Formats: sequence, C-alpha cells, structure tokens
Amino acid sequence: MKYPLSIQNLINHFSCLPTVGPKTAERYVFYLLKKNSEDLKRFSLALSELKEKTTICKNCFAISESNPCNICSDERRNKSVICVVADTRDMISIESTEKYNGLYHILGGVINVINNITPENLNINQLLNRIKNNNIEEIILALNPDLEGETTSMYLTKLLSAQGGSALGGKFKNIKITRLAKGLPTGANLEYADEMTLANALKYRNEL
Amino acid sequence: MKYPLSIQNLINHFSCLPTVGPKTAERYVFYLLKKNSEDLKRFSLALSELKEKTTICKNCFAISESNPCNICSDERRNKSVICVVADTRDMISIESTEKYNGLYHILGGVINVINNITPENLNINQLLNRIKNNNIEEIILALNPDLEGETTSMYLTKLLSAQGGSALGGKFKNIKITRLAKGLPTGANLEYADEMTLANALKYRNEL
Repeated sequence: MKYPLSIQNLINHFSCLPTVGPKTAERYVFYLLKKNSEDLKRFSLALSELKEKTTICKNCFAISESNPCNICSDERRNKSVICVVADTRDMISIESTEKYNGLYHILGGVINVINNITPENLNINQLLNRIKNNNIEEIILALNPDLEGETTSMYLTKLLSAQGGSALGGKFKNIKITRLAKGLPTGANLEYADEMTLANALKYRNEL
Repeated sequence: MKYPLSIQNLINHFSCLPTVGPKTAERYVFYLLKKNSEDLKRFSLALSELKEKTTICKNCFAISESNPCNICSDERRNKSVICVVADTRDMISIESTEKYNGLYHILGGVINVINNITPENLNINQLLNRIKNNNIEEIILALNPDLEGETTSMYLTKLLSAQGGSALGGKFKNIKITRLAKGLPTGANLEYADEMTLANALKYRNEL
C-alpha cells in the first residue's frame, strides 16, 4: 500500500529538490500536514508566483523583480566597476558584505568541459558589449577558487587583457582586471588548512 | 541588499520545514527558478490541495483520502486484529512489508512527559471504544523501542490486560496483547551492536 495520492504527489514534487530523497520529502509533507490551510495556501502562492514575479535584468543578468534590476538602476553605485560572478546567489553573498558599491555581471555559470558548458553558453559576449559601450575602469573576477572557476577566470583574463583586448578592437587596454584574494579564511586553523590554501597564503602574504 | 521579495518569501516558507535552514532553502528556490512554470504550477497545486484532499479516518485516525480509509473499509482484511502505531507514517512502513492483514489504530503520538503529551492527548479512549464495540482478538503494539514508545506500550498493556480490563468492565479479558520483536536488525554487525540490542537478542533468542 502507498500513501494517499495527494500526499504521494507532493512527496514526489519535494523529492525532485536537490539533496531531498523520498524519506526527507515524506518528513516535509507530514510536517506540512500539521500546519493550517492558510499557511499552505501562502506557501503554494509563493511557489506559483516565483516565476511570474521574477525576471532577468537585461544589463547584468541577475534574477530580479524589476528590469533593469535595483543595482543597475541605482544612481549611487559606481558604474565604472563590474564584478563578474557565476550566478545571482554569488552576487547576493558579495552584496551582504556591504563593502562593494559597483555593478555586477552574472555569467550564468562557469566553463565546465565535463558538463559541456563552453564560453558560448555564458553571458561573456554580453560582458564584452557592456565593456565596449560603457566607461569601465575595473573588472573584478569573483568566481569560485576551484578548477572550473579558475579556468573561467583565466579565459576572461586573456580575453580582456591588452593582447586579447586588442584583438577585440584594442578598446580594453586600460581596464584593470582583478580577482578576489586567496589566503586563509577567517577563523581558519593552520594545522588543518590544505596545502594549496597555505601555499597561497604564503605567496600573497601582506606587509604589515 | 536582500533577495527580491518573491524569492525571499519562498525561501522563508522552505526554511520553516524541519532540518531546512536558510542556505538549504536558497538552494531549493534557485533550483526551482530553473524549472519551467508548468512544473511550479503543479507543485503549487499539490501543496494547496494537500489539506483539502486529505482527511482523518474516523475509525483508525489515519490520514486518508476517504473516510473510513481504504484499510478500514477493505472487506478482505482481518477485523479482529488491531495494530497500534504512533502515526500514519508508521502504518505505511508496516503496510510496505505486505505481511500484515489486520486493521490499524493511530495514536497520534506517544506519551512524552517532557513535551506534555499525556494519555489524554492520544487516541486511547477511541481505541478502548473500538475494542469494546468490536470483536477484537489481538492488539499488536507497534511503537518505537525508545523511552517514550516503551512507556506508552507499558501504559497500554496495563490498560488492556486482565486487571486493567476488568476495571474497564472486564470485557478485555481474552484479548492477546503482543508487541514487535526486539533483536538484531537485518545486516547488523555484532561488533557494533549496542548492549541493549544485544541483551534483547539474547533474551528473546529463538529455538532452531
């Protein structure tokens, strides 16, 4: 015997979420069964409105409720710096530091040969167009320091540097290209830090 | 800066689920953003229909789409045996063995002094009424072998046994009360089994 159809149906939907198996989905559904109908209606509404109320910003490709997004249309932000991130979540993480006042560009992923994600699948041409058509002084590459992120950073650096830039019309010569610092994370323990992290922390050590 | 309102709203709803924190909820929502609107609509519908389409069986108190539930109304089932479980999920677990053909009674929890769940909060009186008004031969106590489950089993045993039964009209004298066997689970490793399990396995050893 199985669960009643309406319960099994919802379990199946929850099971599709990443890291959620049938047992976890069951737990979610039985938790929701104890909630009142009003709460479920609100949850259901939030779910159905998710796609309808959100859009992709035409400038930076962030998921947003307005187009252009709040950041692109904010007059107080520094329009000469673009921070390149893989997705909207990374943008939110950087925003939450409250230490960055420039614009963003969402690539929509990183180059990944195994998953067949090539530069053509990313918003790289759109980035080049933004750089061509605006007065950009600095590009910050804020991609994950893993294999795919580093590959993408290298690709973008070649594309945007003096040589690559000249191939694209010589317009990018004066743009500064930076990337996020590598080193020990806050609260780290030297004893447990991996060799790569420690090697980077040594290589990029700061003068006091 | 925070997420767009419609995204934050859905993150908050997912965060209410057991074991889901804000980071996991974010992950769910960004996964759902990649799905098409149709899928989201179906998910949303399943959620809103959950409460509307389900009810509690008046006999056994299982969550069901019909009243009485499929099991209570199934003529082929043995109506003289009642298996007492804590909730509907436990019933489904036992059903999935396909080795039980009797009825169920869902207590709606177990006695838990810390969480203030007393016998009055459980469907115990309803169980006594079912026993009084039907020709029941056996009650199987299928509660978790933990402190709360054992307490509840002991309470029910006292209530249903000859002595307690006589206090309730002497009608329960001939009812057999059983509980699920204790011992080693399939695939267990003696080396890693805890003392209680091993002690029970010894105590309830079977003749070959």
